[in-house]
Amino acid sequence: MEETLARIGERGIINKIRNVYGYAWEDDDAAAIGMGSSYMLVTTDSINRETHIPAGANPVTLGYFFAAINLSDIAAMGGKPEYFLSALTLPRSMRLKELLGMERGIAACLKKYGTRMIGGDTKEGAELCMTGIAIGAVARDRILRRRGAASGDLVCVTGTLGRNAAAYHMWKRTRSRLWANRILRVEPRVSEGMLIARHGATSAMDLSDGVLSALRQLSRLNRCGFELDEASLPIDGAARHASMELGIDTDRLALGFGGEYELLFTIPKARFASLASSARDSGVKISAIGRVIAGRVCSLIKDGNRFVMRDRGFEHFTRENP
Amino acid sequence: MEETLARIGERGIINKIRNVYGYAWEDDDAAAIGMGSSYMLVTTDSINRETHIPAGANPVTLGYFFAAINLSDIAAMGGKPEYFLSALTLPRSMRLKELLGMERGIAACLKKYGTRMIGGDTKEGAELCMTGIAIGAVARDRILRRRGAASGDLVCVTGTLGRNAAAYHMWKRTRSRLWANRILRVEPRVSEGMLIARHGATSAMDLSDGVLSALRQLSRLNRCGFELDEASLPIDGAARHASMELGIDTDRLALGFGGEYELLFTIPKARFASLASSARDSGVKISAIGRVIAGRVCSLIKDGNRFVMRDRGFEHFTRENP
Repeated sequence: MEETLARIGERGIINKIRNVYGYAWEDDDAAAIGMGSSYMLVTTDSINRETHIPAGANPVTLGYFFAAINLSDIAAMGGKPEYFLSALTLPRSMRLKELLGMERGIAACLKKYGTRMIGGDTKEGAELCMTGIAIGAVARDRILRRRGAASGDLVCVTGTLGRNAAAYHMWKRTRSRLWANRILRVEPRVSEGMLIARHGATSAMDLSDGVLSALRQLSRLNRCGFELDEASLPIDGAARHASMELGIDTDRLALGFGGEYELLFTIPKARFASLASSARDSGVKISAIGRVIAGRVCSLIKDGNRFVMRDRGFEHFTRENP
Repeated sequence: MEETLARIGERGIINKIRNVYGYAWEDDDAAAIGMGSSYMLVTTDSINRETHIPAGANPVTLGYFFAAINLSDIAAMGGKPEYFLSALTLPRSMRLKELLGMERGIAACLKKYGTRMIGGDTKEGAELCMTGIAIGAVARDRILRRRGAASGDLVCVTGTLGRNAAAYHMWKRTRSRLWANRILRVEPRVSEGMLIARHGATSAMDLSDGVLSALRQLSRLNRCGFELDEASLPIDGAARHASMELGIDTDRLALGFGGEYELLFTIPKARFASLASSARDSGVKISAIGRVIAGRVCSLIKDGNRFVMRDRGFEHFTRENP
């Protein structure tokens, strides 16, 4: 039987693709190209109707989401997004109003984060498929990579966890537009990324694949393990509410869902107090949720018990998607 | 009745999208970002199963085509392509062999043109949709734009015309793999673009939309007209053959088809001889096919008669595509 992509899974596919090119590249949220004393950052992220767009979502919200998830990859590297391009494959039957709503959403997000639309492509196709390209910059000594976490570092996240997961599960239950739109409500953590870079974060990535998947990837790259304190997780109010409503564990909402765009990062213990104080001053929420440890195990400490976290988070091709 | 994209057409859509952003950008093949004494060039081009991929095409040929059409946009600006990213939306049922074939095609094209794959994205979706991103560089005084043609300039093209058009029509007739693959056989004219920039070309673009569409766009941007000499058109042998076989006019094959990736450019008459001599020395085929004229009419001189060319070339959303 011939191997299909469904049998191999996203990471397997990516590894096989990389072998074709015969050289390694970094596993970062964006590619970094050295240019004098800074790096140019380039990233691309696609969404399509079938996999990423919940029925009932507002075009403006969708457009904002689309731009935000691309800018998020620049933010995760400590960079400032500067330019954006979008390549849109659009069905003939799409209403102009819907397209222009999406564009207004993209424009609003770019404006908010000081990013300029410089070009793109529009093509006709059977299914809506949108690819964004974000270009940014970061000083050489401020770049955040996935590699760099060291045993003893604290593990931290920006914002709260579980809000988009809660929306997704509420939407699955209700199919209401309200929840469809909330699934897509994300902000790229641009000033947060720059702040944590300035304060000496040792590694970072965004939570587009979920906390568990992020930890698994960081564990592999940094040959380390992680230990999270359940009591320290900044569970979003919406996640607590959905947890009661739907009977889903808050930890699962907070840790196992892809589609949140907070930043997860590591930072030496000694530097956390100064970061926390700056964060408070600038109204940014940052929580220490655990530690980098020796070994390769990711575990959760809950009520004094240790649980090994095996879930692989959100991975395309082998699991169900929203 | 609500307006759908099919009713508006590609250029109408692009204009409406641009209005959302409230500022103008150049109508060039790639975006140009000033960086010291040079420009960084960025471009994106998508293809999808329904619109661009003839049934029976070989994955390796398809991958090569996909990379080539992106590099072509850098070539059209006089630039050297340096980096490439690809965002792939892939159906679960796709065979791994097919994907890896495409990647080998991409890798071969990038290798040939000294371009490095630096990243990308893979997502699952209902239909194959591939978006490429090419990044290149060009010196500030060597950039080729669409704006710049002046009355009296010669109009020139690289290579021959009508080869891909011929393949398309032969494929439509025969549905054979041979012709499916030939539709996709293109090379980005990278050294040609750099050569014509060095020799003072005043405007350039690639022929992805066909000669007529290119002239119409240059006419609008440069407020000029064009006059082509039918006898000077470098009709490809395959186009002559297909013309006889299928009873399609060679001019139509050479001028009206999108999907050829030669460069069309304008150059002052006085500089043509030097360009032609350099081109000969480097084994590059360049043909002067007409002149830039005052007014806004594009016409073809054939057997002493003048024909006004009204065909709009290849435009998405309103016409049939391959």
